[in-house]
Amino acid sequence: MLNFDYSIPTKIFFGRDKIDVLAENVKNYGTKVLLVYGGGSIKKSGLYDKITNIFKNNEISYWELSGVEPNPRVSSVRKGIEICKDNKIELILAVGGGSTIDCAKVIGAGYYYDGDAWDIVVDSSKINKVLPIASILTLAATGSEMDAGAVITNLETSEKLATVHKDMAPKFSILDPTYTFTVPKNQTAAGTADIMSHIFEVYFSNTKEAYLQNRMAEALLKTCINYGKKAIDEPENYEARANLMWASSLAINNLLSYGKETEWSVHAMEHELSAFYDITHGVGLAILTPHWMEYALNDNTVNNFVEYGVNVWGLDPSGDKYEIAHNAIKRTREYFVLLGIPSSLSEVGIGEEKLEKMAKQATVRGNLGNFKPLAAQDVLKIYRAAL
Amino acid sequence: MLNFDYSIPTKIFFGRDKIDVLAENVKNYGTKVLLVYGGGSIKKSGLYDKITNIFKNNEISYWELSGVEPNPRVSSVRKGIEICKDNKIELILAVGGGSTIDCAKVIGAGYYYDGDAWDIVVDSSKINKVLPIASILTLAATGSEMDAGAVITNLETSEKLATVHKDMAPKFSILDPTYTFTVPKNQTAAGTADIMSHIFEVYFSNTKEAYLQNRMAEALLKTCINYGKKAIDEPENYEARANLMWASSLAINNLLSYGKETEWSVHAMEHELSAFYDITHGVGLAILTPHWMEYALNDNTVNNFVEYGVNVWGLDPSGDKYEIAHNAIKRTREYFVLLGIPSSLSEVGIGEEKLEKMAKQATVRGNLGNFKPLAAQDVLKIYRAAL
Repeated sequence: MLNFDYSIPTKIFFGRDKIDVLAENVKNYGTKVLLVYGGGSIKKSGLYDKITNIFKNNEISYWELSGVEPNPRVSSVRKGIEICKDNKIELILAVGGGSTIDCAKVIGAGYYYDGDAWDIVVDSSKINKVLPIASILTLAATGSEMDAGAVITNLETSEKLATVHKDMAPKFSILDPTYTFTVPKNQTAAGTADIMSHIFEVYFSNTKEAYLQNRMAEALLKTCINYGKKAIDEPENYEARANLMWASSLAINNLLSYGKETEWSVHAMEHELSAFYDITHGVGLAILTPHWMEYALNDNTVNNFVEYGVNVWGLDPSGDKYEIAHNAIKRTREYFVLLGIPSSLSEVGIGEEKLEKMAKQATVRGNLGNFKPLAAQDVLKIYRAAL
Repeated sequence: MLNFDYSIPTKIFFGRDKIDVLAENVKNYGTKVLLVYGGGSIKKSGLYDKITNIFKNNEISYWELSGVEPNPRVSSVRKGIEICKDNKIELILAVGGGSTIDCAKVIGAGYYYDGDAWDIVVDSSKINKVLPIASILTLAATGSEMDAGAVITNLETSEKLATVHKDMAPKFSILDPTYTFTVPKNQTAAGTADIMSHIFEVYFSNTKEAYLQNRMAEALLKTCINYGKKAIDEPENYEARANLMWASSLAINNLLSYGKETEWSVHAMEHELSAFYDITHGVGLAILTPHWMEYALNDNTVNNFVEYGVNVWGLDPSGDKYEIAHNAIKRTREYFVLLGIPSSLSEVGIGEEKLEKMAKQATVRGNLGNFKPLAAQDVLKIYRAAL
């Protein structure tokens, strides 16, 4: 186990009707709020009215940034910063999924930065201070509700980059599983794949003897497998939605990665897909993951895949190692198919054309990962296998 | 899954030589420290010198409360409060295991309380404010390094009671597994049993569909089982000590209990044993646990024990339910024996004499638990089975 510093400061209010705590928690930071949301589903669901009524009844003033994109763009961030500066906003409340929360985080960081917002995405060391962020989650997927990271897309440069600062972690997040009852099947599936991918990125690692972390990772993977399909088949199954929602937060709040060297290579490869083609992040991850697994499988890594197959999929440990490993990967692929996710790049409209360019771009900051280090030509092979 | 509010504010600095962060973290709270420790093992190990040198080199003044007992007594708490008041202490640093940290916590709470310290143990609602607490852990067991609870013994009244206040959670704790290399075999065994008991108390629950929490509990139980014996056989095995140490914190920092109704009936029963006989807490827990399990096993609970047997001990799920359940309990008992822990009350000098009195005392605040509610006569039966 490697040394680590543990700090997970986000407070979580979890469960039905937890929105009751909104006003008092907002007021810990001020009474001037920027409400950040996406395409308007929160208006259809009634959540928007609920929140704005709470604000009105508690003398909280609010401004709005709506229309944040599924892969949130730096242009939205810039707009948000302007509203914050013009109105001396004291708290940014994101209502939605990870994109909305990510956008809010970088608005909060950009508020205190003098240059252009894209600078602090490219180089997080330029972030010094962040306006307080809070969130009300409506989609179990990215874990942004309990972590310090954000991913922002720049369409002008076809770049999609992650930035991290400890003060971007939400001060509090409200997780009411009923808010995810209306999430469509395909988004539920993509969200589940996203959660699983976050776990895979830290589970498959060079670090030996992170036994505790690995068993916890398996616990969360089993949770996703147990409830992903159920949530699709029974959208109002509270327990399915609750387990997935809590898994989304715990998968990437560092609990699983403390003490380990971690990968994040599939995320880096996927970010190019959604930067170039604007596809759903979770779908890209689900398509790439089994191909990355097959590519990463070798004599150094086979035991990790055996452990995965036996502990997560319940495979018989007595067989041939490679057979177990391949079988585990097959089960992974089949599960994503069961969730209704496309299993090839061509199904989502991605062909050979830009693969080389994307592979180069994915490795522009250096080789990906350590478990199986990937240079541009490796990434290209994985993209091609996934076509 | 039940509603919950998640807040785990303690920062953890985990790993070799993490004591390097001590001075800067102390100084976040002040420069006048009360150092609380036990019987002097930290002097033998050199840790005392290391800490006091750091204080001297960083202009941190310190006072000392030494000799804190394994079941910390309210008399020690009173002494500590006096030192804090006389010297306007700004931070209390506990160095040791759970007893030392528990004592520090109640000193911190008592500092701001006008009456006698025992009042705030009996009734935690009397706690309003707490001096900042920090810890350097030298024994993996109670989890006090990352939770808000403390257990204090009053020898005059033969009471051992738990008290909780959110501000008693340490601001930071330093967890260096090498500090546990010198923990004797019997204390390593008792500590492991203590960790496992914390997990059992929240794992066996009436709450249905806390799937995620249950899988995580199993992850931690497997960690204890994988490393407990190893740490006894190879006291300087870093990975064994590290996994046990981190398990001790995560077992009881609420991560496993959020969203669940929990038990704590074995702890309540054990507190009477160590209040009346001053035995090691973990030993008492290990003796009582298998008997509590057998007593709690019935048609309502058998599925929980089957899940435990299959997921933790790898038992074949296809057999008769009760057979699996009994087998799981047998494996639990055998594991504690393997660790070298006595398996009956008589082995630790406890006879029939005070059993009735203790059973009455254990239930003085009401029946214990909900999974299998225990009245005084039930507790008595469990004590007798354990004789």
